[in-house]
Amino acid sequence: MNAYDIIYKKRQGGELSRRELNFMIKGLLKKEVPEYQISAFLMAVYFKGMVSRELADLTEIMVESGEQVDLSAFGKNAVDKHSTGGVGDGVSLTLAPLAASLGIVVPKMSGRALGHTGGTLDKLESIPGCRVELSVSDFKKQLESIGVAIISQTENIAPADKRLYELRDVTATVESIPMIAASIMSKKIAEGASGLVLDVKSGNGAFMRKHEDARKLADYMEDIGTRFGRKTIAMITDMNQPLGRAIGNACEVKQAIDLMKGSGPADIKKLIVELVSEMAVMAEIYEDKHRAKEEAIANLSNGMALEKFGDMIEFQKGDRRVCDNPEKVLPKPRYYKDVIAQTGGCIRAMDTRSIGLCVSSLGTGRKRIGQKPDYSAGILVNKKVGEKVEKGEPLARLFSSREEDLSRQANSYRRSVIIN
Amino acid sequence: MNAYDIIYKKRQGGELSRRELNFMIKGLLKKEVPEYQISAFLMAVYFKGMVSRELADLTEIMVESGEQVDLSAFGKNAVDKHSTGGVGDGVSLTLAPLAASLGIVVPKMSGRALGHTGGTLDKLESIPGCRVELSVSDFKKQLESIGVAIISQTENIAPADKRLYELRDVTATVESIPMIAASIMSKKIAEGASGLVLDVKSGNGAFMRKHEDARKLADYMEDIGTRFGRKTIAMITDMNQPLGRAIGNACEVKQAIDLMKGSGPADIKKLIVELVSEMAVMAEIYEDKHRAKEEAIANLSNGMALEKFGDMIEFQKGDRRVCDNPEKVLPKPRYYKDVIAQTGGCIRAMDTRSIGLCVSSLGTGRKRIGQKPDYSAGILVNKKVGEKVEKGEPLARLFSSREEDLSRQANSYRRSVIIN
Repeated sequence: MNAYDIIYKKRQGGELSRRELNFMIKGLLKKEVPEYQISAFLMAVYFKGMVSRELADLTEIMVESGEQVDLSAFGKNAVDKHSTGGVGDGVSLTLAPLAASLGIVVPKMSGRALGHTGGTLDKLESIPGCRVELSVSDFKKQLESIGVAIISQTENIAPADKRLYELRDVTATVESIPMIAASIMSKKIAEGASGLVLDVKSGNGAFMRKHEDARKLADYMEDIGTRFGRKTIAMITDMNQPLGRAIGNACEVKQAIDLMKGSGPADIKKLIVELVSEMAVMAEIYEDKHRAKEEAIANLSNGMALEKFGDMIEFQKGDRRVCDNPEKVLPKPRYYKDVIAQTGGCIRAMDTRSIGLCVSSLGTGRKRIGQKPDYSAGILVNKKVGEKVEKGEPLARLFSSREEDLSRQANSYRRSVIIN
Repeated sequence: MNAYDIIYKKRQGGELSRRELNFMIKGLLKKEVPEYQISAFLMAVYFKGMVSRELADLTEIMVESGEQVDLSAFGKNAVDKHSTGGVGDGVSLTLAPLAASLGIVVPKMSGRALGHTGGTLDKLESIPGCRVELSVSDFKKQLESIGVAIISQTENIAPADKRLYELRDVTATVESIPMIAASIMSKKIAEGASGLVLDVKSGNGAFMRKHEDARKLADYMEDIGTRFGRKTIAMITDMNQPLGRAIGNACEVKQAIDLMKGSGPADIKKLIVELVSEMAVMAEIYEDKHRAKEEAIANLSNGMALEKFGDMIEFQKGDRRVCDNPEKVLPKPRYYKDVIAQTGGCIRAMDTRSIGLCVSSLGTGRKRIGQKPDYSAGILVNKKVGEKVEKGEPLARLFSSREEDLSRQANSYRRSVIIN
């Protein structure tokens, strides 16, 4: 067995055996197969794809390359949710405590901002004191106590995926849909939940712009999950405009608290309830999805979800008072600027990726690894697709700690919105 | 400009600018672009190809990465021939001196055995004393004196092509037709001939098995040559059976001498005359190809070609007496074995690649770089496609210095010939 023959076979569209996949991935980790062969292999995979058996084998090899969190004590109750990433996608902040309030155990390992998309960890860290770097044992203790934790992926989850991703990232092979599926699923499987609800974003603010690509990714991930004996459901949801009305870190936390007080934007609320009800049925807490939805809606209004959120923040050393008084506790933006509509009409479309880059430029993005973002930077969206706007009305309000960025980003935001 | 964007652009099927190609190739040579990015790029080129403008730019970048031989003193007279490689393809041994006998200057830089194909340099070196490692200045002096030289490509011809080829060779991207075209043409253009006749082999013993691939390669190479102001003609010729009757080193030299004494197999003779007449018209020695053919045929019989061959061998320090007494001068095989037909019938097909591997195993192939091959190893083909054979008649005779290899290779040869 040698790397050349494996690259050649994939280049010709062949199906690789588990041993062949293992040879490449282990070879990369042990530095026995040079990076230049792995990257040619990755480009061949980009063009020729993988069948579902190959993907399951690849995923398993990546899972077994590192630590696997044992959540078997929670049985079928442990259900996670994962989103492929979007703009204004602060779903997890509300969903995780809401799900826990229904009796689901939510062992959530999340990520940080990537490109034009936000990251749940950054959002949580905008709450003063809140920690996300927990050990696996503290993670499990918290789950036992309150049924919910949102932490950073530990270093040793799927290290093979990390190495592959580093290479994909510099060789223009990240966008391979089967590789994305294997990458996400290897981490989710290693993280140990028995069930998984996947929110696959589709549209101009998603990594999958085309619905058919989102469909493929959803199918691949469901297939992999099922092969591993994990209940897996993938929903495709719209990302052709920002979700909700808030984009950023502190401002999405504020919106999440609004949602857990029974208010907040309808679109993100509907999505949260939809996802949570899937999780509840998967965890066998409710047989009937309709019933699960009713209970979820109730717990958003009756304070149960917010109580769990407060518990989680407190467990993670954050300032629980954020629940009662978010404006006071959360970092406040120094400057703001309204984006004014120059014509009246109806909002026809929003370039969501461009709006994501806009908020990143306002301060949520990192210029180098490890840098703290500007937690107060963000956008409050005033007008969404299908809504009417008068000339002179604000389309959105931008926040930043750097006054000089506001005018430029206001222009950029204005260009991202099509009115006619 | 960065490597990622260039890989991405090519992956999406985009057309790269000269600056972008230069960034990648110079980056490889200067170690500023890592090999893992170059190999992903090469795989993207494998799948997405290049338009002719990109190929011309790539070729020029590779030409300019090294030495360019100045043959302008010979003007339009300097015409080279290049074959993409085959089995029994000893054309150059006869063609080069024959062309010189017609007044063409033949500045030939050749290669060694590669995979299942033979190499002109190995064949020449089977003549005792014959040297192929000449300096460019000795090369030019020889061309001035006798109009023909066959030497090894100097180290500094198209070094960028060498580096790229090394990577292609280990990443399963050698078979990219545009890259093959640019690779061949970069060397041929750097070698300085004003005209070039390309013999593109097609069939089961060629690197291009499919005629349509050979056609593409021919078109790419003609296009590149023309863009460099070099007269370039590419002919596609059959490699679905060994050319001529001899395969190996000494035995192909012996056959070449037969050809230059007016005898020898009809197929290789016809091809040589065809190629030489193209060269003669290209060099403007004859206007009329038909006339050129007549002169070429005459010079094979009247001793003129053989005289040139003798001059060339003598200039290159070889034993000129090989012309008169090849059996005595050339290395003699220690053992031989006939491959006997087990059924009678007509030869329907020959697996030419497999026959090439057979002769390589008999001793013409190298197990490591720099090793001297067994010059006496080879095959004399007795029955070719379309010919009748009786049960018990020999299909071929195999020669080797290693008796133990003969039986196995005889079986292998027998399996490569379809009789019905």
